[in-house]
Amino acid sequence: MSPKTKTAKESLTITTKMVLPNDTNTHDNLFGGQLLAWMDVAASISAHRHCKRVVVTASVNNVAFNFPIPHSSIVTLESKVSRAFSTSMEVFIDVFVEDYVSGKRTKCNEAIYTFVAVDQNGGPIDVPKLIPETEEEIARYDGALRRKQLSLILAGKMKPADATELKKLFLGE
Amino acid sequence: MSPKTKTAKESLTITTKMVLPNDTNTHDNLFGGQLLAWMDVAASISAHRHCKRVVVTASVNNVAFNFPIPHSSIVTLESKVSRAFSTSMEVFIDVFVEDYVSGKRTKCNEAIYTFVAVDQNGGPIDVPKLIPETEEEIARYDGALRRKQLSLILAGKMKPADATELKKLFLGE
Amino acid sequence: MSPKTKTAKESLTITTKMVLPNDTNTHDNLFGGQLLAWMDVAASISAHRHCKRVVVTASVNNVAFNFPIPHSSIVTLESKVSRAFSTSMEVFIDVFVEDYVSGKRTKCNEAIYTFVAVDQNGGPIDVPKLIPETEEEIARYDGALRRKQLSLILAGKMKPADATELKKLFLGE
Amino acid sequence: MSPKTKTAKESLTITTKMVLPNDTNTHDNLFGGQLLAWMDVAASISAHRHCKRVVVTASVNNVAFNFPIPHSSIVTLESKVSRAFSTSMEVFIDVFVEDYVSGKRTKCNEAIYTFVAVDQNGGPIDVPKLIPETEEEIARYDGALRRKQLSLILAGKMKPADATELKKLFLGE
Amino acid sequence: MSPKTKTAKESLTITTKMVLPNDTNTHDNLFGGQLLAWMDVAASISAHRHCKRVVVTASVNNVAFNFPIPHSSIVTLESKVSRAFSTSMEVFIDVFVEDYVSGKRTKCNEAIYTFVAVDQNGGPIDVPKLIPETEEEIARYDGALRRKQLSLILAGKMKPADATELKKLFLGE
Amino acid sequence: MSPKTKTAKESLTITTKMVLPNDTNTHDNLFGGQLLAWMDVAASISAHRHCKRVVVTASVNNVAFNFPIPHSSIVTLESKVSRAFSTSMEVFIDVFVEDYVSGKRTKCNEAIYTFVAVDQNGGPIDVPKLIPETEEEIARYDGALRRKQLSLILAGKMKPADATELKKLFLGE
Repeated sequence: MSPKTKTAKESLTITTKMVLPNDTNTHDNLFGGQLLAWMDVAASISAHRHCKRVVVTASVNNVAFNFPIPHSSIVTLESKVSRAFSTSMEVFIDVFVEDYVSGKRTKCNEAIYTFVAVDQNGGPIDVPKLIPETEEEIARYDGALRRKQLSLILAGKMKPADATELKKLFLGE
Repeated sequence: MSPKTKTAKESLTITTKMVLPNDTNTHDNLFGGQLLAWMDVAASISAHRHCKRVVVTASVNNVAFNFPIPHSSIVTLESKVSRAFSTSMEVFIDVFVEDYVSGKRTKCNEAIYTFVAVDQNGGPIDVPKLIPETEEEIARYDGALRRKQLSLILAGKMKPADATELKKLFLGE
Repeated sequence: MSPKTKTAKESLTITTKMVLPNDTNTHDNLFGGQLLAWMDVAASISAHRHCKRVVVTASVNNVAFNFPIPHSSIVTLESKVSRAFSTSMEVFIDVFVEDYVSGKRTKCNEAIYTFVAVDQNGGPIDVPKLIPETEEEIARYDGALRRKQLSLILAGKMKPADATELKKLFLGE
Repeated sequence: MSPKTKTAKESLTITTKMVLPNDTNTHDNLFGGQLLAWMDVAASISAHRHCKRVVVTASVNNVAFNFPIPHSSIVTLESKVSRAFSTSMEVFIDVFVEDYVSGKRTKCNEAIYTFVAVDQNGGPIDVPKLIPETEEEIARYDGALRRKQLSLILAGKMKPADATELKKLFLGE
Repeated sequence: MSPKTKTAKESLTITTKMVLPNDTNTHDNLFGGQLLAWMDVAASISAHRHCKRVVVTASVNNVAFNFPIPHSSIVTLESKVSRAFSTSMEVFIDVFVEDYVSGKRTKCNEAIYTFVAVDQNGGPIDVPKLIPETEEEIARYDGALRRKQLSLILAGKMKPADATELKKLFLGE
Repeated sequence: MSPKTKTAKESLTITTKMVLPNDTNTHDNLFGGQLLAWMDVAASISAHRHCKRVVVTASVNNVAFNFPIPHSSIVTLESKVSRAFSTSMEVFIDVFVEDYVSGKRTKCNEAIYTFVAVDQNGGPIDVPKLIPETEEEIARYDGALRRKQLSLILAGKMKPADATELKKLFLGE
């Protein structure tokens, strides 16, 4: 029987890559679409590690590309489940680039993907709850509910008036 | 000299693909990361067609994967600039899948990406304004300001109280 | 039941691509073999749209590479069935490249591929007839018979004397 | 100084491949577009070996796909220059598939590509003449002139009445 | 100025991958050549992290493929420099596969690659010494000299009689 | 029934490739991992040609990368079975690079891979014996036993004292 709860740490997935010619756009920087694909694989492994089931990408929330990542860079993706809902899991991916000479790591991207656990017929199935431990894990866990309400509103599946968490943000309650 | 305004239609980019073994996940459906990469290329061509400059992906807003897209499907991506801000462009990508026998097209995804036009040094440069024409283009144009405010809030660069467009949504003003 | 006839327009397939580092030869231009593969996919979608069956490439007729297409170019492939024979379809693919600054489209390639519709066992099956409408569609439809006779002669399956359409070309009848 | 003539044998290029999942279409057979790309690389090596210059694909003449080539097959491409004109070279590619158990080789495709030798500016430059030796090499050498006339006619660059070699074929002279 | 010594831990590189259709052989298991390429990238990042210079693969020592790794497996590569010689670094790569349901990690491969640090002209340059810390690191550090002597003998660059470390192994001294 | 013995020549596999942008590392030279993957495919075809069964990579023995192979090079891999043991085959791969102007071939790599023949369940099965013919084939055949003993010792499956062939090397018997 699968456990009822898991910590965020249990789903931590680390992937280090080198930006090869294959991965670059016409500016000789990492192609945005390639990074999106890498993040999808890393995040799906985290989601799988959380629930031990087949998972499929449900949505990509906000991803910001703040810095160009040049050819030959060493890039590390670290992903962890940030919150589990009944059948879905929100996953944060932090992306770091490493200075070629000093080796100093700089965070260059942060992305949020959501996955759903599915059975053989593709129907959704329940996943363990997530227990956040560190300060960052708790902050991300708390934010997940606001992001979920926001998604539901944007998809027309929730009325703004019912999004209690979000309303607080705008009304300063 | 480049024109001061462009219509949405001028940036329309159509790409039809067949889902090959290469593109599938372990469920024999189109791999989410692959679709994200395809959308990035299509949307960047739309952004380039709008401003005729080099463009780089600035962010991916909400992307929902509603239906699995099986191996061998014919998939069509249609992308168009939905609104231009001073140096950035929001692009909508609609994804359709075609029934293998009847040929009937079904919309299976909708995504929003943002691009920035850059000069040789990677610095941002001004882009033409967008003139929406159809009803859908106008609705997307109007929504773009709310989404921009939302992004700024989520990134901590705007106070919720200043997001006039968004507040209306929650307060029903 | 599938229709007895189709127009050329019904099989129109548009694919827009950007030439990425991956796709270039040692001159930093689009690699000929890559363009051949792209054309094969686009043309096979047109053939499938015409007959709604699995199709396999039967032959590539003349393809001329007139201009080098540099790295970062935006390339659009437009393919349409030009004529259907009992179980095979001839498809024309027109390839356009877009000027990076003015956006002006120039035709850079034209290719002709032939596909056969097959059943589960790989045996050939009948396809709908094609009705050409525009002037260009009619010219390509008429030329298709000459090209078919030419292929049969080159493959040693028809005697030159029986190639009535082709003989006219050489004898000026 | 580069030699004035070369034999066909000097440009022989052999490439043996295994059909991997990557290379297959939705029927689990070798994807036509992939084979076209493989043939382009093999043929361009033959053309380069003949003239020791950079070569670019000028055209693909007739390619027939007679048999499906299943996943895991061992495929061998053999290419040789069949005739050299002033700045262009016609190359034949013979494709063989090997029976998995008996190892018996069967010819499954034959293709003809044409390449042009270019200088640093992409301008055409002279190539050595080809001396055919075997019976097959001589037959292909002789056919090359007919194919060249045919290409010129199809491209509207030669009048049928001037295509002396081709006229013989149709008039039985 | 770069440090004179580094610990093994400082070069630890972790890469987690999912085996996608792309990566499989005709048995639906991870293709050996693909794993060799993954290990080469991971190991080269470790070597780079040790010396902060451009590194090139010098040799692959023994790699054993003990277990087939099926499609969809989650595979983790962990690589660390095991010993540095004047201009070269030996790197160990341990490969683990994770049980899909229990998540239990099993070691499935171990490989040893050697890299050389090079300057702009490709000439070899000095690298920091390696300080092993754990028991395993020390055992691998000690074995590295025997492996280096063995390589030199196999390459005909050392006489067996001079391979003091190796002779002990055979003579039981 | 499959033959009891085969010559080395019967498994000769030739593969000629051009180094494309795709295949290069950050120095614009052929990426080591890519060459390892190419050698694995070529060697596995040789092993299959020897035994006509499914083969899987068992190990990579010593591979030395002596020279950088620049972008656009023409590279030829020649592989042949060097010795067959009961269920395994040792394969040598010689890699040559061709001077772009003179066409002169230089050997740039030599690698040794081992494959095992497997039945439907992945269990090992017997393979024909190999008969070496040329001087080089005989030398490689003789060395194979020493290499096998060495592998067994390194894997802890044989005591150095029992490695009769190897002991001679160190003791000069």
